[in-house]
Amino acid sequence: MSTRTESDSIGEIAVPADAYWGAQTQRSIENFPFGARERMPIEIVHALALVKQAAARVNRKHGLDAALADAIEAAAADVVAGKFDDQFPLVIWQTGSGTQSNMNVNEVIAGIANERLAGSRGGKSPVHPNDHVNMSQSSNDSFPTAIHVAAALALRSRLQPAILQLCGELEEKAEDWSDIIKIGRTHLQDATPLTLGQEFSGYAVQLAKASVRITSASTDIFHLAQGGTAVGTGLNAPTQFGEDIAHEIGVLAGVEFSSAANKFEALATNDALVELSGALNVIAVSLTKIANDIRLLGSGPRAGLGELDLPANEPGSSIMPGKVNPTQCEMLTMVAAQVIGNHQAVTVGGLQGHLELNVFKPLIGANVLRSIDLLSTGMIAFAERCVAGIEPNRARIAELVDRSLMLVTALAPEIGYDKAAKIAKHAHETGSTLKEAALDLGYVDAATFDRVVDPRTMLGSD
Amino acid sequence: MSTRTESDSIGEIAVPADAYWGAQTQRSIENFPFGARERMPIEIVHALALVKQAAARVNRKHGLDAALADAIEAAAADVVAGKFDDQFPLVIWQTGSGTQSNMNVNEVIAGIANERLAGSRGGKSPVHPNDHVNMSQSSNDSFPTAIHVAAALALRSRLQPAILQLCGELEEKAEDWSDIIKIGRTHLQDATPLTLGQEFSGYAVQLAKASVRITSASTDIFHLAQGGTAVGTGLNAPTQFGEDIAHEIGVLAGVEFSSAANKFEALATNDALVELSGALNVIAVSLTKIANDIRLLGSGPRAGLGELDLPANEPGSSIMPGKVNPTQCEMLTMVAAQVIGNHQAVTVGGLQGHLELNVFKPLIGANVLRSIDLLSTGMIAFAERCVAGIEPNRARIAELVDRSLMLVTALAPEIGYDKAAKIAKHAHETGSTLKEAALDLGYVDAATFDRVVDPRTMLGSD
Amino acid sequence: MSTRTESDSIGEIAVPADAYWGAQTQRSIENFPFGARERMPIEIVHALALVKQAAARVNRKHGLDAALADAIEAAAADVVAGKFDDQFPLVIWQTGSGTQSNMNVNEVIAGIANERLAGSRGGKSPVHPNDHVNMSQSSNDSFPTAIHVAAALALRSRLQPAILQLCGELEEKAEDWSDIIKIGRTHLQDATPLTLGQEFSGYAVQLAKASVRITSASTDIFHLAQGGTAVGTGLNAPTQFGEDIAHEIGVLAGVEFSSAANKFEALATNDALVELSGALNVIAVSLTKIANDIRLLGSGPRAGLGELDLPANEPGSSIMPGKVNPTQCEMLTMVAAQVIGNHQAVTVGGLQGHLELNVFKPLIGANVLRSIDLLSTGMIAFAERCVAGIEPNRARIAELVDRSLMLVTALAPEIGYDKAAKIAKHAHETGSTLKEAALDLGYVDAATFDRVVDPRTMLGSD
Amino acid sequence: MSTRTESDSIGEIAVPADAYWGAQTQRSIENFPFGARERMPIEIVHALALVKQAAARVNRKHGLDAALADAIEAAAADVVAGKFDDQFPLVIWQTGSGTQSNMNVNEVIAGIANERLAGSRGGKSPVHPNDHVNMSQSSNDSFPTAIHVAAALALRSRLQPAILQLCGELEEKAEDWSDIIKIGRTHLQDATPLTLGQEFSGYAVQLAKASVRITSASTDIFHLAQGGTAVGTGLNAPTQFGEDIAHEIGVLAGVEFSSAANKFEALATNDALVELSGALNVIAVSLTKIANDIRLLGSGPRAGLGELDLPANEPGSSIMPGKVNPTQCEMLTMVAAQVIGNHQAVTVGGLQGHLELNVFKPLIGANVLRSIDLLSTGMIAFAERCVAGIEPNRARIAELVDRSLMLVTALAPEIGYDKAAKIAKHAHETGSTLKEAALDLGYVDAATFDRVVDPRTMLGSD
Repeated sequence: MSTRTESDSIGEIAVPADAYWGAQTQRSIENFPFGARERMPIEIVHALALVKQAAARVNRKHGLDAALADAIEAAAADVVAGKFDDQFPLVIWQTGSGTQSNMNVNEVIAGIANERLAGSRGGKSPVHPNDHVNMSQSSNDSFPTAIHVAAALALRSRLQPAILQLCGELEEKAEDWSDIIKIGRTHLQDATPLTLGQEFSGYAVQLAKASVRITSASTDIFHLAQGGTAVGTGLNAPTQFGEDIAHEIGVLAGVEFSSAANKFEALATNDALVELSGALNVIAVSLTKIANDIRLLGSGPRAGLGELDLPANEPGSSIMPGKVNPTQCEMLTMVAAQVIGNHQAVTVGGLQGHLELNVFKPLIGANVLRSIDLLSTGMIAFAERCVAGIEPNRARIAELVDRSLMLVTALAPEIGYDKAAKIAKHAHETGSTLKEAALDLGYVDAATFDRVVDPRTMLGSD
Repeated sequence: MSTRTESDSIGEIAVPADAYWGAQTQRSIENFPFGARERMPIEIVHALALVKQAAARVNRKHGLDAALADAIEAAAADVVAGKFDDQFPLVIWQTGSGTQSNMNVNEVIAGIANERLAGSRGGKSPVHPNDHVNMSQSSNDSFPTAIHVAAALALRSRLQPAILQLCGELEEKAEDWSDIIKIGRTHLQDATPLTLGQEFSGYAVQLAKASVRITSASTDIFHLAQGGTAVGTGLNAPTQFGEDIAHEIGVLAGVEFSSAANKFEALATNDALVELSGALNVIAVSLTKIANDIRLLGSGPRAGLGELDLPANEPGSSIMPGKVNPTQCEMLTMVAAQVIGNHQAVTVGGLQGHLELNVFKPLIGANVLRSIDLLSTGMIAFAERCVAGIEPNRARIAELVDRSLMLVTALAPEIGYDKAAKIAKHAHETGSTLKEAALDLGYVDAATFDRVVDPRTMLGSD
Repeated sequence: MSTRTESDSIGEIAVPADAYWGAQTQRSIENFPFGARERMPIEIVHALALVKQAAARVNRKHGLDAALADAIEAAAADVVAGKFDDQFPLVIWQTGSGTQSNMNVNEVIAGIANERLAGSRGGKSPVHPNDHVNMSQSSNDSFPTAIHVAAALALRSRLQPAILQLCGELEEKAEDWSDIIKIGRTHLQDATPLTLGQEFSGYAVQLAKASVRITSASTDIFHLAQGGTAVGTGLNAPTQFGEDIAHEIGVLAGVEFSSAANKFEALATNDALVELSGALNVIAVSLTKIANDIRLLGSGPRAGLGELDLPANEPGSSIMPGKVNPTQCEMLTMVAAQVIGNHQAVTVGGLQGHLELNVFKPLIGANVLRSIDLLSTGMIAFAERCVAGIEPNRARIAELVDRSLMLVTALAPEIGYDKAAKIAKHAHETGSTLKEAALDLGYVDAATFDRVVDPRTMLGSD
Repeated sequence: MSTRTESDSIGEIAVPADAYWGAQTQRSIENFPFGARERMPIEIVHALALVKQAAARVNRKHGLDAALADAIEAAAADVVAGKFDDQFPLVIWQTGSGTQSNMNVNEVIAGIANERLAGSRGGKSPVHPNDHVNMSQSSNDSFPTAIHVAAALALRSRLQPAILQLCGELEEKAEDWSDIIKIGRTHLQDATPLTLGQEFSGYAVQLAKASVRITSASTDIFHLAQGGTAVGTGLNAPTQFGEDIAHEIGVLAGVEFSSAANKFEALATNDALVELSGALNVIAVSLTKIANDIRLLGSGPRAGLGELDLPANEPGSSIMPGKVNPTQCEMLTMVAAQVIGNHQAVTVGGLQGHLELNVFKPLIGANVLRSIDLLSTGMIAFAERCVAGIEPNRARIAELVDRSLMLVTALAPEIGYDKAAKIAKHAHETGSTLKEAALDLGYVDAATFDRVVDPRTMLGSD
């Protein structure tokens, strides 16, 4: 492999000749030999490049040479657009400030700009990775800023739409099935009836609340650390740099950001991301409930509850011919378990900062972005390939209501809890219907029974 | 032990003669023989009794005999007031709907009322635990309502004041120490300077945000399940019962509540409590950071960082005479670890509901209340017995700033990153001061050095 | 309240006159005002007292006055026996080395001994809490030793017997039900048959493995830190003190212990307890699976799977008369969730040690002991009050086997997977039996069908 | 894109013409549209292929046509060797039994074999993915078998060597530095002395125990589910198939495996992997402690503890010139946090199985393998790029010992704890040395002081 020599404060190092990156990226490749599976999420790289583009705009007003600023902006925009994705080989597991990914972006942008300006790829002249691309910045403020920007964009463009799509599917079912009376189950035991629509309305509300939860738990994500530089004081950045760059980032990203009011907190902690992760954790919990219920209601076809028919997307078994499984439910509950695990990693990383800097940023950023990605893709697949295609098994549902003993509950206000309990017990022991048992015990006459024990009147006003 | 006979739908059972409780409480004692350490939190019991008191008020309007309603209200009020705390022996580990604790409260209130009305303790007449005390209710709505009420009260009366007290102490330090310039540390390595006040301002902001986080993550806690009865349809409860009782509970508790808009979600999930637990988890993360920093800055007295002197509240060692330890920091970080663990328990419980009911409610309620209790007591002790008494070691702090190499950062905009790096490296290798190294290498003259490398100008505009 | 004055290196302090404890205990009460619910587990207190008793025996050989040694031994033995449990008011949330609980034990033993020897309760003479009771010890080695001793005793006397009892119940069912052919379910969908005995044999094996897991994950628990004193070097303890006291502790406890080979690791980490907690976590996972399966198989009575009848231990609902719920399953899965949460707390505490000491010991010890306690009580209750009383519903089980489509699997080796799949699909769509569908499609003749598709031949050789 | 038509029991589907895979793989690609980052770990694919190779060997003895068996073996061997890695596009998030990855392997092996035997890529003839490649197997036993095989190989070839390498480096330091006396620190406060070698011996022991923990927690990993087929009964597999294939897998893999004694447990649970994950969690905890200590001891260079000089592998800051950070420690603690999070995901997946099958297998397998990978690479990088190059700062270490007050501990047996405490307090308050304070207070004469307070005698016999 042909190489060229690049250097940093540690010394010289050979870099592949066709790489745009420089010495620090190369060192990181060698010092952290994890596989390609462990790459820093490209969303963070793109967001870092967007920060560089915005920084060049602001720095231009504070003395950065216009030609250099133009070159940095153009190169950064190309990185943002994904044209140089192969130039970011670094992994999550590096320095905890993300300095190496920040330098990877600085070096590649400088490398592109230098090629364009001076004809030679890489290097530090005329555009220097630190003095120009990183001007007025530190990894300590740029990297958390990039995580916030990447997360904010992912919430807006992926998670919230996915939540709303799944919520919409569930609401549609809730409405469509508002007339299907089914047996309720509490403790997995037969209980009083409700409609299938009411059951699904609960799921829809879980998703509607998920959207609100994300909004309220991400307020702080829209506040950026940029401007704090090394320790939060803003040393080497112009006054108002934080506010100005937050504005420029917002313009470039199409999402409004503001500058964090206290930069010491913004660098030293990742509390905002721990908070967001907590909201993702609630969504994982909600989705597990919903997917579990649906596979339970769809269990069978002949030895399960059998109330729902789930879409048959693929053969279910390599050995059992004709088997169909609730695979979208399985995917979604596995995704949820991963999000819960990611939340734990984020929590453990979040609690371990020291003094002016939390150095678990790549871990935290990578996990939050992965959770958003998994939930978004998972919810859309589940909505489209499972929920949309569910059909109620009306005959089975009706049969189960007819058989139930828990309709006796409606008698309790009439004859008291104790006598009603005796009716249910008697029916259970003798295998009779409720009505037979009730008349048998003489606690109520047939007309009263028929009037009171009617599932259609047990569904509430909603 | 003298006993009397009580009965339920399972049959008769002997109950201690002096107990106010009835058959179902007694069965639970025998079926779940955990020790007294595992008692259902008394806050939940009190909140259940408050629900009963409010229910009697509403039920009176819907046909509950006034004499019985009066007796129930009076007995419930006495339970709320803590006069019968020894009548609630049940443990957390019971049925997952909390039915047994609900029945414990129903039975004890009936038992008290019956003693007052009929002269004989316990029993079901004239006040019946189910037909009268539990009228229009199910455990499935009463128990989650009680958890919400107990949590809401604990947030208002304990957690939020504790957060504000600790926040206030930290803000006071931030202000008092705004003139103390100290060395910053990132990656635990010397970095550029900031003031001790700035450092503590970050902690104060963490607490200020904690308060906001709790508020936004607890919105749903103020929505009550009551009125949904068994499965969310409200069977056996009058129309508007949910709204009416939410109002009465608010009047009794002094906190405004509303009725959950969707009762199916309110019974079948505990998402609202998982969300709140996530916010408690962030606070645990924040407190760990703060307490860790403080013990690190207080490390020594002679072989540590030594920047802070922490209050000596007790002898630190049973073997090392004169040792003083950061015990409040240790308490607080242990409390935080417990809260993080509790959050995991809540998450695991939250994800496992089935159909119309999540049956991990006692687990979830007990953990959320314990976390609130631990954080509240922990933060106040930490504020009063640690933060309030911290003294900065000004001489030590100044000495460390003087020695630092990272003030070189201020030179980078002047002479470029690469030369500045060489100065720092040269000083480090030769053991010289920055200025000596800078002049030695000839990168800057003495006057420029003195002008640029002045920690007082490196602190930002804040 | 009448008080007396006690003192320590911080100064004088008023102590309740009738308390046996001294100054340091009193300070801790005041500095860590958590409620009685948060008490240090009494098992750790008892184990600490046992350490003191053993220490007195060893110290006697190294110069401790025999009269003092006798008095310490006698007082310590009384504490071990539970005669002074009200003298240990301290909470878990104190100094992270457990120094205050260690001093509480030192002070109370001294206080008892002094009362017996000199007629005056408390104080430091003739028996001094540090110089005599704590002789050759530090909290840093005594406290982790006590946690190990308490955990080892709890494993031996409580957890292992509970595992074996539950395992035995499950094995009995596996044997009793070895002739009951039932439908298998994978993905909650109907699958090929197995016997109910085979299904329960899987649960029994989970428990049998739980026992092995605990044994192998607790090897290190039987190695004691005692002898390391303050930092692991054993300063102020005689040579061989560690080995001698491990022997004496073993004699007193009736369990063999040895001295940790490396005391630096033994003080600075709690890895051994994190490892044990990991095994408790596996048990929690196993129990959740078992209890979930049992409640699923017991779901109904009329709208569920209905294969098992679970014992009706108590009325299941405060509103639905006659309802019976799988409350032991609910208790056990809640207990499991708590153990999983406790494991997280232990993990978070375990990872945060600094240099010569991990100061999350009370947190870790309390959680491990609580998990052992919860699992032990939970498994025995579940074994006795649930598993022992389960009855199979043979008619229902047979009916579900008869209906199943997945017996088609046995045809696949005969006619190929693809044709077999077509039979199953055809039967499902037409609502016919497998045989009807098979003959209808002409893929097999009736005789072959009857020979091959016989659930009795599908159960394997086990 | 040119396509061909493949079919399964759902119907026909277009597959890329050059793909070896068939209908079911194609469906999974479309049904689970997660990105390439979420691919099923290739180690599991390779292990599945190894299972297929072994199965062909055993099936040949039970009637599988020799030509087909040969073709399957050859194709499978090529997959194991990594020659077809681009043919496995499926992601982790699919059906929870791994059926689709199992079918992907079945289809590709059939596709390769068919191309070789019949000249046409893909298809089901002469080699059928189910009837021949999957003969005597189900996904339900093959997939967990593959996870066990992949994990066992990763433990043997990657994790254990990495543990031993790091352990060796630490032991070398422990030996090399056995003469360097340093101040101990407990509670982060100065304590009695020890040697730097003793301190590192604790770390080395943590690693030595890690190796033992992995061995004892992975016993069950070497037991294979294969032979249980769909539900554990072994339907459609010959008698002894499990034992025979375990033997063949062992031959192919070079590691001895045996057949799981109870196949019901082996399919329905993943307890063995939860157990292994628990041991990985302990290693994560241990590594966090070690890496944290090392960065703390290496803090500085001028305002930290400064006892160790860590290797400078790269520039530490994009803004602070000359800064060097403990990046390997940061990488390792982030990796550890991820492993802790993965453990949580594994736990949550492990507890959710239903009846005959736990359907969280891809989640669990992927997390366990990722944890092994991360720990292995992380430990080797940390050993080679950090521990190996650490240098003690002997002058600084000696200076800190000289200053310390906690050497007073050695006086306690001589003059009593209380007087010794007064000396330390006096020295602290007056800023004097211990000796000055001791003589000043008149508690000891100079000769005694010099004899007793000698750090060289405070290090124990080890």
